[in-house]
Amino acid sequence: MNQSLKQIHEYIDEHLEEHVERIKEFVRIPSIAAENPEGVRRCAQKLANYFEELGCKKVEIVETAGQPVVYAHYDAQARNTLLVYLMYDVKQVSGEKWTLTDDPFDPKLVELPPFKKVLVGRGAINSKGPLVAFLNALFSIKACGEELPVNLKFVAEGEEELGSAHLKDFIKHRIEELKDAQACFSPSASQNIKGEVTLSLGCKGVVEFELECSGESWGRGPTVRPIHSSMAAAVESPIWRMIHALASMTDPRDPMKVVIEGFYDNVAPPTKEDLELVEKLAQTYDEKAIAEELGVKHFYNDLKGKELLLKMLYSTTLNIQGIQAGYTGPLFKTVLPEKIVVKMESRLVPNQTTTETVEKIRKHLDKLGYTDIKINEYPEANGVDDWSRTSPKAGIVQAVIEAYREYGFEPRVWPFSLGSSPQAIFTKDPLKLPFVSAGLSHGARAHAPDEYYVIEGNEKVKGLAHAEKFFVSLLYKLGERALR
Amino acid sequence: MNQSLKQIHEYIDEHLEEHVERIKEFVRIPSIAAENPEGVRRCAQKLANYFEELGCKKVEIVETAGQPVVYAHYDAQARNTLLVYLMYDVKQVSGEKWTLTDDPFDPKLVELPPFKKVLVGRGAINSKGPLVAFLNALFSIKACGEELPVNLKFVAEGEEELGSAHLKDFIKHRIEELKDAQACFSPSASQNIKGEVTLSLGCKGVVEFELECSGESWGRGPTVRPIHSSMAAAVESPIWRMIHALASMTDPRDPMKVVIEGFYDNVAPPTKEDLELVEKLAQTYDEKAIAEELGVKHFYNDLKGKELLLKMLYSTTLNIQGIQAGYTGPLFKTVLPEKIVVKMESRLVPNQTTTETVEKIRKHLDKLGYTDIKINEYPEANGVDDWSRTSPKAGIVQAVIEAYREYGFEPRVWPFSLGSSPQAIFTKDPLKLPFVSAGLSHGARAHAPDEYYVIEGNEKVKGLAHAEKFFVSLLYKLGERALR
Repeated sequence: MNQSLKQIHEYIDEHLEEHVERIKEFVRIPSIAAENPEGVRRCAQKLANYFEELGCKKVEIVETAGQPVVYAHYDAQARNTLLVYLMYDVKQVSGEKWTLTDDPFDPKLVELPPFKKVLVGRGAINSKGPLVAFLNALFSIKACGEELPVNLKFVAEGEEELGSAHLKDFIKHRIEELKDAQACFSPSASQNIKGEVTLSLGCKGVVEFELECSGESWGRGPTVRPIHSSMAAAVESPIWRMIHALASMTDPRDPMKVVIEGFYDNVAPPTKEDLELVEKLAQTYDEKAIAEELGVKHFYNDLKGKELLLKMLYSTTLNIQGIQAGYTGPLFKTVLPEKIVVKMESRLVPNQTTTETVEKIRKHLDKLGYTDIKINEYPEANGVDDWSRTSPKAGIVQAVIEAYREYGFEPRVWPFSLGSSPQAIFTKDPLKLPFVSAGLSHGARAHAPDEYYVIEGNEKVKGLAHAEKFFVSLLYKLGERALR
Repeated sequence: MNQSLKQIHEYIDEHLEEHVERIKEFVRIPSIAAENPEGVRRCAQKLANYFEELGCKKVEIVETAGQPVVYAHYDAQARNTLLVYLMYDVKQVSGEKWTLTDDPFDPKLVELPPFKKVLVGRGAINSKGPLVAFLNALFSIKACGEELPVNLKFVAEGEEELGSAHLKDFIKHRIEELKDAQACFSPSASQNIKGEVTLSLGCKGVVEFELECSGESWGRGPTVRPIHSSMAAAVESPIWRMIHALASMTDPRDPMKVVIEGFYDNVAPPTKEDLELVEKLAQTYDEKAIAEELGVKHFYNDLKGKELLLKMLYSTTLNIQGIQAGYTGPLFKTVLPEKIVVKMESRLVPNQTTTETVEKIRKHLDKLGYTDIKINEYPEANGVDDWSRTSPKAGIVQAVIEAYREYGFEPRVWPFSLGSSPQAIFTKDPLKLPFVSAGLSHGARAHAPDEYYVIEGNEKVKGLAHAEKFFVSLLYKLGERALR
């Protein structure tokens, strides 16, 4: 370890209390995107203050059609420029029963075995804790009289929890300022409760839509409201119509198989690179533990190990999130309903497009004569839609893996995660950057009561000091090599 | 008109205000079967008091496993004994917005065009108005010094609105006391808003049940709670399973056709008697008006007149009342649900049994391998289940038709109604009585705000005085002939 790195690490250890206080200060601001625009704005201002304090030469709170983006540029006169993606908003808390703090916005430090000290509060892990830990790392470098090893362009959005609906627009409008970035990084806490580190080089996309069958658009059955079911002998049912329309989309003997024409056309098989990653992943993948955690007794076809991972990763899906029709209260009500709404979702994998699923379903319905069945799309809920891939060979990926190894961790590298995130905004047109999210430490219960971020861990799970030191080490690595 | 009948009619006209007051007094008691056992009991006591006042030699409030039955025997030493079926409970009012009275249990007399005076209140038409009108008729006969022309055995239940779950038990326990009755009569107000009189000689049955598919009973898919839908690529869905199970039950090209084996086996074609009734009905049946009222643009196969009536009457059904599964709130939630519940119903026609539908569905599901899909039955909701038929040739039917004609009305006679009622309790084992519900006047909005019963009608719709006079005339006819 070189002298300045050692000095920075010492600085972090000495100022840890102060650093925890900065996280608490940030968590205290109730930046609930869905409910509290004032809190969101206050949080944006606080973040802008941090950037100014850091020495960013340009700090802006940029208005969008939704919540503002905080943009900041730190010019270190360095060789590389890193785009840093952050989110400063949090999920709602109403209806949640917190037990480790009276108020989710009054963060508390508590012992939570197996951890000596965790910070409990809304946003602790998702994602104010890791965000401030990253800033603490930057402050520490500067406090030791060093210049940052990379130039940074921060893009912090205030509506990730609403689907990042306006982030694409922001990028498009600011492309001239952002286009010199060589990679995109997002700070996180990637250890699970056992200390294992996961690194995902992308994500799946997701398209959500409703199917709606109603007497009104069909022209048959009840059109305005449910009618008495004594008429069901002579009046048709939009519910039965929808049941058959749905049933036509998947194989009755195996409903995991979608039989809509061309549904799988653009699903790419795993690449050789991917297969290598999956082989390696399978060596440590514990499907029994995952199944138990989920409350699932059998995976599809009782697949295991590599085969299960391949199925999970390289499958597009057609999932029914929910169905609402007619009377659903206690016992019964003799009605023939006028409408049924089915909430559906498809997970997108390389090389599917974000529009093809809905187009194929429309075509399928029309072909079978279900031209009246409506597909309702809600663009405001679909900011996060596209899949994303970053090559394992990208410089930033190699730097992250090296940094993890330096701290004693061999990351489990997934070609992409099963979930979805807005990273395609950075990895596809117009930026086309490699994207990595990484960090030590652990947190859990995002979107749930008693959300926490580990401050003092144990032998396996690192606490805040190590999380910040990791970010420092990583930044130095990112200054030394090509990032793409 | 004989002298005593004339005298009774005059008595009714002279005491109408008092008679209206008796209805109001009865409506004021909040006998909500589902919510107010105290109100139900108070109403039972009031009814018992009326029976005592009338001169019944035996009046009992009989406990059941549910709400009490009020039983009373009036012995007129007459040739015929009539069982009178009454209900004294009413439907809930919560959530309803009444405009014609501040309180559904503070009945008001108001003008409601095209009617000069209607009584507004919960139970006004269903069925406290007609019930008290019938009692008023009996009181009037006695007040004029006449003996009642028939012996009466009153059976008044307090949980019709809960499905008459304990009425069968009562009949079974009291069969010795009831078996000398020759027919069963239920007072009602059978005129529609245009004054037309309908007479239904029976009803359809109804069987209600839930189908439930869950990961828990299937052993696949999420078993405990919804899981994140990113797992849908490798975890099966109970929702899709249910969609295919449902789709297997009806013809996709015509979901009105049930394809469950033997589903239609016991559906009897119309008898010659029935066909004659339907022919006659078709002459006045206005399907356009009915469709408009229902908000339905097309009946099944665009059927009209006699064909439509035959389809409505002689079809059993498999209706979906409602479906509940997963997330049904605003926009979307990325879940793979663990359970789906479908509320279903089948209307029974002669000669179906009350148990065959569920048995056939069970067999159908099992045959296709859906042994895990549960059929939930709720016996407490299925007191009214069987279909009922009364021959148009029964003495009581002929008497009712004659009485209507005497008052200038040619009733539209339906072989049975499309809806369901507890009348099979009287028309099948062990009583096997002909059953008729009849009465002049009109009312509407049962189970809805501003429920009303016409007190002063117009040229076509009779008011309370005529309703009572009709009951008097009918009672005399029922004393003169064989009722079976």
